[in-house]
Amino acid sequence: MSRPSLVLGIDPGTAVTGYGVVAFDGRTSTLVECGVLRTAARDPLPNRLVELYAGVEELIARHRPDTFAIEDVFYARNVRTTVVLGHARGAILVAAQQAALTIREYPPSEIKKAITGRGSATKEQVQFMVARLLRLKAPPQPADAADGVAAALCACLASSLPSLPAMPTLASFRSPSPRSERRR
Amino acid sequence: MSRPSLVLGIDPGTAVTGYGVVAFDGRTSTLVECGVLRTAARDPLPNRLVELYAGVEELIARHRPDTFAIEDVFYARNVRTTVVLGHARGAILVAAQQAALTIREYPPSEIKKAITGRGSATKEQVQFMVARLLRLKAPPQPADAADGVAAALCACLASSLPSLPAMPTLASFRSPSPRSERRR
Repeated sequence: MSRPSLVLGIDPGTAVTGYGVVAFDGRTSTLVECGVLRTAARDPLPNRLVELYAGVEELIARHRPDTFAIEDVFYARNVRTTVVLGHARGAILVAAQQAALTIREYPPSEIKKAITGRGSATKEQVQFMVARLLRLKAPPQPADAADGVAAALCACLASSLPSLPAMPTLASFRSPSPRSERRR
Repeated sequence: MSRPSLVLGIDPGTAVTGYGVVAFDGRTSTLVECGVLRTAARDPLPNRLVELYAGVEELIARHRPDTFAIEDVFYARNVRTTVVLGHARGAILVAAQQAALTIREYPPSEIKKAITGRGSATKEQVQFMVARLLRLKAPPQPADAADGVAAALCACLASSLPSLPAMPTLASFRSPSPRSERRR
């Protein structure tokens, strides 16, 4: 797998889409920018889709990433929710593909596992490890931004897997040692 | 409701998206063009979404419709199918909204009811009525193109509803009389 050097990670949603831009030198990941794209619930869906598309297009134009990491569909209990999420992902993927980025899609559990060592990790555990892995004083805010960063980080970690003796485990989350931190 | 003068109708799908362009003078609908946009099943979804987006963008640039009619999500038994369809609709709606078209979304049953008088009409019944309403010698081919035309026709019929004494009924499908044809 080609090694990403700049990754735009996206946690898609119709109301709030989290994003994170992460630079990767093959060993170390560094946070460049993170934030959220918000759309107004009162606006019709087509308007919100164009806003998402334009927002992602702008991020790509500004950062010129080579890799695009996006969280795969989350199958909500309410099918309608999942279908609307599909619309948002469709609009976002058009922007990524038009820019000819390398696109990586990861199921939510795979992102959690790559970051914390456990596919069923809580939101707080993911945020904690995102902050540790990027040497941040606090987890990215708001939480949706952290999820976008986690997707980007997942692409970095996945690309360095061949040289990784073992994925960080939940043990390293509970009581992180300097050694486990450097395992990336 | 503003009366459409040129409607682009879309029956969205990832593999085959049917479309129909219908001109409407307030009383009579006339078929301008119909066909399908196909994407290759072997291509990754993001590539297919860009193809759909570009295909719809091209149709809009060429015909300059004022109204965009699209079939609403069909909830398939397989959720995955419905979610992928959501992605396709997302890509298509971005193209329509960017062109600032009036967007009308109709559930499949509403389109069937507008065209045949019965929400549970068969594909063949819809095709038969589409051909009659547009004075065609035969239904549009392939069937997916006819579904795109039906969506466009639905927007025309809906806009003329105030002056319409009654929707065409299944009886008028089974044994159409010249009078029932002119009821549009």
